Amino acid sequence: MNIAARMAQIAPFHVMELMARAQALEAEGRSIVHLEVGEPDFATADPILEAARRFLGGGHVHYTAALGLHQLREAISGFYHTRYGLDISPARIVVTAGASGALLLALGVLVNPGDEWLLPDPGYPCNRHIVRLLEGKPVSLAVGAGANYQPTARQVELAWAERTRGLLVASPANPTGTVLDPDSMTALATLVAARGGALLVDEIYHGLTYGIDAGTALAISDEVFVINSFSKYFGMTGWRLGWLVAPQRHVREIEKLAQNLYIAPSTVAQHAALAAFQADSLTILEGRRHEFSLRRDALLPGLRELGFKIAAEPQGAFYVYADSSGLAADSFSLAGQILNGAGVAATPGLDFGSNAPQDHMRFAYTVGRDRIEEGLGRMAAFLNSR
Amino acid sequence: MNIAARMAQIAPFHVMELMARAQALEAEGRSIVHLEVGEPDFATADPILEAARRFLGGGHVHYTAALGLHQLREAISGFYHTRYGLDISPARIVVTAGASGALLLALGVLVNPGDEWLLPDPGYPCNRHIVRLLEGKPVSLAVGAGANYQPTARQVELAWAERTRGLLVASPANPTGTVLDPDSMTALATLVAARGGALLVDEIYHGLTYGIDAGTALAISDEVFVINSFSKYFGMTGWRLGWLVAPQRHVREIEKLAQNLYIAPSTVAQHAALAAFQADSLTILEGRRHEFSLRRDALLPGLRELGFKIAAEPQGAFYVYADSSGLAADSFSLAGQILNGAGVAATPGLDFGSNAPQDHMRFAYTVGRDRIEEGLGRMAAFLNSR
Repeated sequence: MNIAARMAQIAPFHVMELMARAQALEAEGRSIVHLEVGEPDFATADPILEAARRFLGGGHVHYTAALGLHQLREAISGFYHTRYGLDISPARIVVTAGASGALLLALGVLVNPGDEWLLPDPGYPCNRHIVRLLEGKPVSLAVGAGANYQPTARQVELAWAERTRGLLVASPANPTGTVLDPDSMTALATLVAARGGALLVDEIYHGLTYGIDAGTALAISDEVFVINSFSKYFGMTGWRLGWLVAPQRHVREIEKLAQNLYIAPSTVAQHAALAAFQADSLTILEGRRHEFSLRRDALLPGLRELGFKIAAEPQGAFYVYADSSGLAADSFSLAGQILNGAGVAATPGLDFGSNAPQDHMRFAYTVGRDRIEEGLGRMAAFLNSR
Repeated sequence: MNIAARMAQIAPFHVMELMARAQALEAEGRSIVHLEVGEPDFATADPILEAARRFLGGGHVHYTAALGLHQLREAISGFYHTRYGLDISPARIVVTAGASGALLLALGVLVNPGDEWLLPDPGYPCNRHIVRLLEGKPVSLAVGAGANYQPTARQVELAWAERTRGLLVASPANPTGTVLDPDSMTALATLVAARGGALLVDEIYHGLTYGIDAGTALAISDEVFVINSFSKYFGMTGWRLGWLVAPQRHVREIEKLAQNLYIAPSTVAQHAALAAFQADSLTILEGRRHEFSLRRDALLPGLRELGFKIAAEPQGAFYVYADSSGLAADSFSLAGQILNGAGVAATPGLDFGSNAPQDHMRFAYTVGRDRIEEGLGRMAAFLNSR
């Protein structure tokens, strides 16, 4: 009984090992500042919790349709109208088991074995592993601080090869927090369409931008696939709920796959999420967005003072992707030293691809400013004492 | 932008079209008896609901580990001890996003492109479609009433070919409700192991057996993969939670895939499920098992009186798979006639494979006995009036 060959190419989250070590240190009584976790520290907003409790009062937690509750698809459509001024038909909106589910459904109906997909590197690791699950071939597009860690149309044009079938971008991006401006997104969409390819845009950090707004790719084209999530801006990580907006003619295929892979997304989460777009919820979430911006404004200069280089400033998400090459030759080893020596956990570049991971670390501002200041202070003492 | 070739082989749930027609008739004011739905009508048991509400009181709905909450893996291990007298290490238990998630994780680490997997036909349709998603080739093992709708070791031996890599069986099975006895399961496990293949056993209807007990394949071998669910016996469909028991040496690979495909199963559902094994929950669930047995005992003879043939009596799940060939040449057409003419919805064989689907229908006893009697009466009047 053998393991499928693809598994040799599917990596674990390396940060989990570091988190396990952090937990072991905590079990020994050490205090650890957690700057490694890609999950906000906030509790679910009260109106969302209250909607879930109200729904559970009835006790009838049955399957919904595979594409999701009709009311929720309408509520998401309404959100595109109020937030972006766009009319997106609920018929194009698929409620999914997290953004992970949206990604698997979109790629599942698009990726043939041997197809090549262009993915920015550094990038969210699951993207390339889901392409591999489907026997496609992820092709790394190295993106650097000079280009705001986003691919350019020219770069995609040069990389587009005979077997290339699609491009996946994220805006705001993980781990870099950078945003694609509308002109750049339009140029990418135009180029990919001209090549007969598919464009997937990960917009799961939408709403979490600071000083700017991120435009949705849906304003540019009805042909893009857009992935979004209730986990980040809406703060509903553990509920496992996201959505996919697809070109209308692909929805039937996505529905078939959703029936077979998921039956339906979580009914409890869907009823809770109905409250996410209410005014009282959005007031809470906007307050959190402001708090994230203050955290970023504490972490970013603090890291620079320690000697990390951040040439492309993050404008969204809750990460700072920092060049550590002035401090150590290998960020994986540095992350271990900082954890053991300073009691601060951060993610080495290794998880995000093969584009100079040894030179980078990701710091998440998913904890309060007091912890961020504490972490910066500990790192300063540790780095100065080396 | 093309659809992946595999999608031509991935079928929708045909019963959904019939359910849509049933709903349209209801919208017109018609009364419909639903015998098509593979989901119990019961609300979630109160102690489970109460556990969810208690957990939501804290508001901290964050990600769990990809393999699931440690307490839940321990509770499932404890359940194997009390229910089956088996010691299954929590380290071998993976909590999943429904049995669907367990199926995708197990097949994802096992199926290589071109690998052939033997699947009983009729059978649960998602099984063959997930094999196709992974570019494997599902091979239909026709099972009939004469062999209790289960494959025999001799049959598997004859069907095993050069590219065959595994066998998936279900006990109790959907759509037939039949159970594999321990000797037959042992013979299958021995044969598959001798061929160097993998054996997946779907045990999601365990606990819902009537007059007999279904033994778990885990009692026979540590090398089988066993899929189970909180949806059926535990009545938690819309919560989307299941589990997988895997050979210890495969767990690390499964964890990698789970991180990448799901991040984690629903945190709310996991905390709710912790209460599923409590004595007060089990008392409620055993009462429901008894009610299911009474429903079966009403539906089975009733269908026979109508002229359906049921040569292999269902011993578990909540389905009767009935031979309709004495009543009509085509069960798909008959299902439409019964829906329109009698106001009774049932599932034609088409969803379950290519082994004489036109001769069979599946009736689910997921509604109360009064509705079952009402449906039988309506069908009798309709069939006699033709």
